[in-house]
Amino acid sequence: MNATVSDFAGLKPRFAPNPSRLGHFLATRTFDRPTLVMDREAVAGKFRDLAAGLGTAMIHYAMKANPTREVLETLCDEGCGFDAASRGEIELCLSLGISADRISFGNTIKRSSDISFAHASGIALFAADSDEELEKIALNAPGARVYIRMLVGATEADWPLSRKFGCAPDRVHSLLFLARSLGLDPVGLSFHVGSQTRAPAMWADTLDRVAKVWHAAQAEGHGLRLINIGGGFPATIGEGIPHLTDYAGQIIQMVRARFGSDVEIMAEPGRAMVADAGVIAAEVMLVSRKSDNDLCRWVYLDIGRFSGLAETENEAIRYELTTERDHEGMGPCILAGPSCDSVDVLYEKRPVMMPLGLKSGDRVLIHVTGAYTSAYSSVGFNGFPPLDVVVI
Amino acid sequence: MNATVSDFAGLKPRFAPNPSRLGHFLATRTFDRPTLVMDREAVAGKFRDLAAGLGTAMIHYAMKANPTREVLETLCDEGCGFDAASRGEIELCLSLGISADRISFGNTIKRSSDISFAHASGIALFAADSDEELEKIALNAPGARVYIRMLVGATEADWPLSRKFGCAPDRVHSLLFLARSLGLDPVGLSFHVGSQTRAPAMWADTLDRVAKVWHAAQAEGHGLRLINIGGGFPATIGEGIPHLTDYAGQIIQMVRARFGSDVEIMAEPGRAMVADAGVIAAEVMLVSRKSDNDLCRWVYLDIGRFSGLAETENEAIRYELTTERDHEGMGPCILAGPSCDSVDVLYEKRPVMMPLGLKSGDRVLIHVTGAYTSAYSSVGFNGFPPLDVVVI
Repeated sequence: MNATVSDFAGLKPRFAPNPSRLGHFLATRTFDRPTLVMDREAVAGKFRDLAAGLGTAMIHYAMKANPTREVLETLCDEGCGFDAASRGEIELCLSLGISADRISFGNTIKRSSDISFAHASGIALFAADSDEELEKIALNAPGARVYIRMLVGATEADWPLSRKFGCAPDRVHSLLFLARSLGLDPVGLSFHVGSQTRAPAMWADTLDRVAKVWHAAQAEGHGLRLINIGGGFPATIGEGIPHLTDYAGQIIQMVRARFGSDVEIMAEPGRAMVADAGVIAAEVMLVSRKSDNDLCRWVYLDIGRFSGLAETENEAIRYELTTERDHEGMGPCILAGPSCDSVDVLYEKRPVMMPLGLKSGDRVLIHVTGAYTSAYSSVGFNGFPPLDVVVI
Repeated sequence: MNATVSDFAGLKPRFAPNPSRLGHFLATRTFDRPTLVMDREAVAGKFRDLAAGLGTAMIHYAMKANPTREVLETLCDEGCGFDAASRGEIELCLSLGISADRISFGNTIKRSSDISFAHASGIALFAADSDEELEKIALNAPGARVYIRMLVGATEADWPLSRKFGCAPDRVHSLLFLARSLGLDPVGLSFHVGSQTRAPAMWADTLDRVAKVWHAAQAEGHGLRLINIGGGFPATIGEGIPHLTDYAGQIIQMVRARFGSDVEIMAEPGRAMVADAGVIAAEVMLVSRKSDNDLCRWVYLDIGRFSGLAETENEAIRYELTTERDHEGMGPCILAGPSCDSVDVLYEKRPVMMPLGLKSGDRVLIHVTGAYTSAYSSVGFNGFPPLDVVVI
């Protein structure tokens, strides 16, 4: 191992603080199983880049993206807030000494007993998108601040959004009214433009739709004061991703133009905060051809869809891969994971280019994998251990 | 909780030994998180049903389906063999006192050091489908018995098979030849008809294709003696699944008709051995409508695609769900998991019928879930703990 991440990256520096830290560490270590290496300085750098663009907006890190202890501690030290999806995540924050006023409970699907636990812990800000959820919050966290999540329809994000979260615009008014009548404090609206939304311009339609509902609610006298713009800030996967500070600055301009200059803004970045700060060190298990006249080789790695690369489902997220043979001739490959499961195939519809000399035992680095990898990993599917995480 | 599984099941008894064991246990217990309850007697019963149909064939349980210790112990006591997908699974078997001669290493993608470990442990039967894998086996397990896995193309199984495993028929001869030249003992062929193949007749085409290659190899003097028919035996998910003994008996007849009466037969059932023996006790987190005029409710459970129900991907496996309100009026629902992930939706294209009165806190039993659930579960996505398993 003598190539570094910065060598592989070539013309594309991936994070501001010190691109050689990860590279140096990876170049000097071997691992006996797939390992995600996270760079704490890169996480801090991403927070600062985003905060510089978001200005006075509150940042609540969507900790589901990567709940590794050291990542949370780093962001806590930077002054970041936290968006929790469950009691488990809240308990993790509290155990690290993060104060309850920096935590929001942003899942619109919460167990009653978990709402009650959050309330008792001092958490005062909750998401909801339905009558029943508001009733549960009113019963278990009386008087809490709530924001209503709105469904914004089709977006242009890389990782698709379904209709799972949010209510249709026609329900917002009655939910705000119900919240108030239940003794809650309905402070605003939230939405999600879709994970890995590559350009600020892709936010415009969504912001227009939300602003229309917002102003109608204000005209009804709801006195909203918080707009939660969710996540969607992209990691540098693929070409042409703008710098995070510029990206965030443009979003804030677009938000203020629609919601007013004194609206309170909250953001819930996950991927953008941690993806670039992580590289997975994996290994080739096997290279084969199915038939003597196959154009594509099959390359099997020691990591797959069930051990960390869940976001390759339907080939949605296309990770950049590098090896130590990338200066050799390249050819197309179908890439698959190591398990005995047929669906554990990473890229087949659009094969990836890999060195022609690639063979069993070669190291493969999978870049920009600090988000939605380690926590998605299965407990032990096919007897493979979960993705290991090392923080430097 | 006073309804039992047998009440819910109505006219469809699900397993032979004692259908009320699981039902009685579930009716008298509550769980504070999603829990898979496995019935050891039902597992033993399934093994006996299958063995009665398979006759003298060796049965190697595909332990990836459910590697719970008590399940393995039960099958070991019944005389079952084990098919392992990784070093982790081999170590688990050995730790339970299962002897190496009852274990095969059936993954065609193996780390060299794991082959070496298996060989040193006394395991002598390996799968391969490529030149490089044979070379790895010859180097790390010299003289081992190997079978060549063949790609059999499109099948009619519920859980789809990709081209991930197996070589094309045109490569079988050269792989058998290579194995012999490397000092290995190429004993036969294997294939997989596809998981959850609902009727014996669906095996015919595949068996014809494999038999053609087999007889060509015999004519070349390869002296094959083992046909590994893989898995594919169905669990009783959906309607019209034949009794396992009858099903297996028909398969054996079809195999002997094509491969001869004295061929050694090996089978690797996973799902059929354990699926029926498990029920997941889950809970409704939220019932909502997205819009005032929505026809479908959204029902959110405390278990989803990342916490055990991975096989609902693309709505492939449709589990039977029961509640205590099933005597009430029913209506269509979109079913989703509890995480903040948009793709964590179970059934949307074909909604499921659920009671109109269903509400947060209600118990939902998810039947025939003993296979490919607990081991697929993520380590803690969104802060939710992995699926708990209780064996009775």
